[in-house]
Amino acid sequence: MTTRIGELVERFGGQLIGSADVVVTSIAPLDMADEKNITFLSNPKFRNAAAKTKAAALILSPADDETIGQTFSGARIVTKNPYAYFARTSQFFEQKKKRPPQPGIHPTASVDPSAKIAPSATIGAHVSIDGDVVIGENVVIDAGCVIGRGAKIGANTHFYPRVVFLDGCEIGENGIIYPGAVIGSDGFGLANDGGAWIKIPQVGRVIIGNDVQIGANTTVDRGALVDTVIGDGVKLDNQIQIGHNCRIGDHTAMAGCVGVGGSSIIGKHCTLGGAVGVAGHLEIADNVHITAASNVSRSIREPGHYAGSYPLDKHEEWQKTASVVRNLDTLRDRVRELEKTIKEIKDKSL
Amino acid sequence: MTTRIGELVERFGGQLIGSADVVVTSIAPLDMADEKNITFLSNPKFRNAAAKTKAAALILSPADDETIGQTFSGARIVTKNPYAYFARTSQFFEQKKKRPPQPGIHPTASVDPSAKIAPSATIGAHVSIDGDVVIGENVVIDAGCVIGRGAKIGANTHFYPRVVFLDGCEIGENGIIYPGAVIGSDGFGLANDGGAWIKIPQVGRVIIGNDVQIGANTTVDRGALVDTVIGDGVKLDNQIQIGHNCRIGDHTAMAGCVGVGGSSIIGKHCTLGGAVGVAGHLEIADNVHITAASNVSRSIREPGHYAGSYPLDKHEEWQKTASVVRNLDTLRDRVRELEKTIKEIKDKSL
Amino acid sequence: MTTRIGELVERFGGQLIGSADVVVTSIAPLDMADEKNITFLSNPKFRNAAAKTKAAALILSPADDETIGQTFSGARIVTKNPYAYFARTSQFFEQKKKRPPQPGIHPTASVDPSAKIAPSATIGAHVSIDGDVVIGENVVIDAGCVIGRGAKIGANTHFYPRVVFLDGCEIGENGIIYPGAVIGSDGFGLANDGGAWIKIPQVGRVIIGNDVQIGANTTVDRGALVDTVIGDGVKLDNQIQIGHNCRIGDHTAMAGCVGVGGSSIIGKHCTLGGAVGVAGHLEIADNVHITAASNVSRSIREPGHYAGSYPLDKHEEWQKTASVVRNLDTLRDRVRELEKTIKEIKDKSL
Repeated sequence: MTTRIGELVERFGGQLIGSADVVVTSIAPLDMADEKNITFLSNPKFRNAAAKTKAAALILSPADDETIGQTFSGARIVTKNPYAYFARTSQFFEQKKKRPPQPGIHPTASVDPSAKIAPSATIGAHVSIDGDVVIGENVVIDAGCVIGRGAKIGANTHFYPRVVFLDGCEIGENGIIYPGAVIGSDGFGLANDGGAWIKIPQVGRVIIGNDVQIGANTTVDRGALVDTVIGDGVKLDNQIQIGHNCRIGDHTAMAGCVGVGGSSIIGKHCTLGGAVGVAGHLEIADNVHITAASNVSRSIREPGHYAGSYPLDKHEEWQKTASVVRNLDTLRDRVRELEKTIKEIKDKSL
Repeated sequence: MTTRIGELVERFGGQLIGSADVVVTSIAPLDMADEKNITFLSNPKFRNAAAKTKAAALILSPADDETIGQTFSGARIVTKNPYAYFARTSQFFEQKKKRPPQPGIHPTASVDPSAKIAPSATIGAHVSIDGDVVIGENVVIDAGCVIGRGAKIGANTHFYPRVVFLDGCEIGENGIIYPGAVIGSDGFGLANDGGAWIKIPQVGRVIIGNDVQIGANTTVDRGALVDTVIGDGVKLDNQIQIGHNCRIGDHTAMAGCVGVGGSSIIGKHCTLGGAVGVAGHLEIADNVHITAASNVSRSIREPGHYAGSYPLDKHEEWQKTASVVRNLDTLRDRVRELEKTIKEIKDKSL
Repeated sequence: MTTRIGELVERFGGQLIGSADVVVTSIAPLDMADEKNITFLSNPKFRNAAAKTKAAALILSPADDETIGQTFSGARIVTKNPYAYFARTSQFFEQKKKRPPQPGIHPTASVDPSAKIAPSATIGAHVSIDGDVVIGENVVIDAGCVIGRGAKIGANTHFYPRVVFLDGCEIGENGIIYPGAVIGSDGFGLANDGGAWIKIPQVGRVIIGNDVQIGANTTVDRGALVDTVIGDGVKLDNQIQIGHNCRIGDHTAMAGCVGVGGSSIIGKHCTLGGAVGVAGHLEIADNVHITAASNVSRSIREPGHYAGSYPLDKHEEWQKTASVVRNLDTLRDRVRELEKTIKEIKDKSL
């Protein structure tokens, strides 16, 4: 299965320098590529590796093409964003290698007769599909998934094994949900009455846009009265928890183990590093970037880069530091006292 | 499906002011309610919204009834805890709307002949039930659950899809376990021998009381030698980890992503905010409330409100602060030195 | 089912003092043991309990044997590591009590005809096994597991219910994977192009060594281009997230809720406490021990004990402290200013 470089440029653009008839079989990193590969240079610090690569073709930026490109003997594709070009090219090769799904419903699946399943969809072994579910063209539902009553799944979306997607929830087109994710479980809504907790029914849904990716064992709760909404292009890594009523803006990405409390609204094009915690009922503006392990306890109104995690240290150093931290207000008071005394001394000596 | 206000008061108490024959179809928030709804005022800051609501009936406190209640033209239910009343009323309407389960065992379920399943129980598709399991009246076990040998499930308890409930574990009545939760996996018990780890068998069980709710993908480990015990009325949100041998007191609630180390004992009526970490072998008193993202590394003997999370900041500010934090003991020593010098100066100038 | 003490010593070594013909039925803690039990003393602080134990036999260290052993009337097994001896003995008794698995493929399992399954393996209800899978001798795959195309599972390995083990992944011998774990889901690889994210195919695998234990709902992502590698003897607790391309060294153990970012390399014989976060692209040396709730944002080159978590406090105290933390660089500047002033005063007074 070879591919002409010309075909890549026809599909993904970029300026081709060299022969369109160079053929490659796959994409590989600079140092692993051989004469059957195309490779890419996305970071100037790898220019040395690019100078030595054996690849038949190279994807690179205009700036890198002016320097390193001049000595490369193969075909070059010049593009503003070589890393994105690599991603698309890699997808293209993967698609060619992949076994095509075999549309149809596995005989062990349990499907309610009222479900509407496109003939091009593939339903795996031991899947359960409840009444009034709607499944679009080319959808793939892997083994062991459970789809609740009235759920809607858009075209080309892929559920990996053992996804639970509960009643009334919806996802758009081209989505991916990884194994073990749970979409539409009840939000954590409770009223306290004399010490005991009374459950508040959660009657909202989870509504997910197009091109969304949800990681393994991630959970997104249904809304209490309104819906929980995940925008287009949102990417959630593994083991993330999104509380009820949250709204996550388009193209926001969150790394693993993030937790977002109920009713928080996160803007578009944000990135949250691993294990970031966001309290409930907050608002975070568009284009906010939060460093891993930070804890967001107030709304963030301005775009920018935020951080807040306690520094790691040798254990003995940490013990000393932590003991001072506990008494920081005393330390500040001592500094105030010193300032006062020094002022008195200076005043006197004048 | 309409409901007379009088029926609500008969079920849930409160003082009715106005006609018992007002009929409503559901409960809605103040600003979304129309003349077919009952609504509720649980927070004085929403009095303005209450003054404008179009609802046919209003649940409110005696204090609010003295003011805002006087101008409301519909029926009023006066109660000490309008939020709890809302929760109960909302449950009542949900119950009426819900499809009743269809008792029986799905033909794809795999059930050991020695299991005792109440005739009123509902066992979903692809469920596996091992030997000597006991399942009570009106229990619902959704698709894909796995119930281990000898487990006991009390009346009216509901397992959502894909719950794993392992050998010998028990849960009381009226419980809810959400999708993907794993109850009774082995605790993390290991002995180190010359660098390699030897597994210590975990022979305890998980014993769960009545009225307990366990969130999606939450894990509760079985005890090593004794049982792990979850008290009555405990509410656990999603993605919580409870280690082996823990005991969680009645009516304690934990928000998402909390982790509790092995052998810790947490009191009654505690609340743990999201992502709180509790180390192993600690004791936490009754009525302790811990702010989200705090890390509990010592026992807490006194009831009260505890916190400990590092503040978020703009990234550049955080970098400055974190570098000072690392050297806090030096800063404290410098302050000490200053205090000494100033004392010397003052002594001299006397 | 009784066991002669002599049989234990033949299997697990140690020096027997007393009769090899003493028989016991199981192992129990010092204070719970009776004349049918063997017990163990692994911590000198329990010597008093050892002096009072009713057990028929006692496992203890040479040092403890010199003191407490002299007064114990039953048989003694003297060994350098009584805790490891306890673990092995406990495993031995558990093994005897356990129902043996019943080899064969459950009639509800869905197995591709090209899969190679050892005749001694046990495949549970509703399991899905894809093409070209290889399953070794005495493997047990519990209900609801999903095994992807070409995966390999070594002899004596046990998958608890609902494990997902995706295409091409491999695990060695004597492994245990607990319920809900997901091995080989795609890593979180994305390229940003004008604000939208483009998925980077993840073509590596997860390769797991021998004697590895992986906890409930833990996730280990497949590599992007290379493999994610989990070394021999690694023990992962519940709800851990291991990013793509990571390499975890032999015999490293991680407690619950740890998150490791992509491409990080962790050494051998490390321990990570609960909820530790490790950023991506770091290296951690062998024999590094990290306290629970710490956040590792730089590589650790030296073995040792590291920590870094913000101290818990009463809520009001925490508020005061946190407000000072936010302004620590100002406090440091004030101290500098004071130092300067005092120097001036001293210089002047000379």
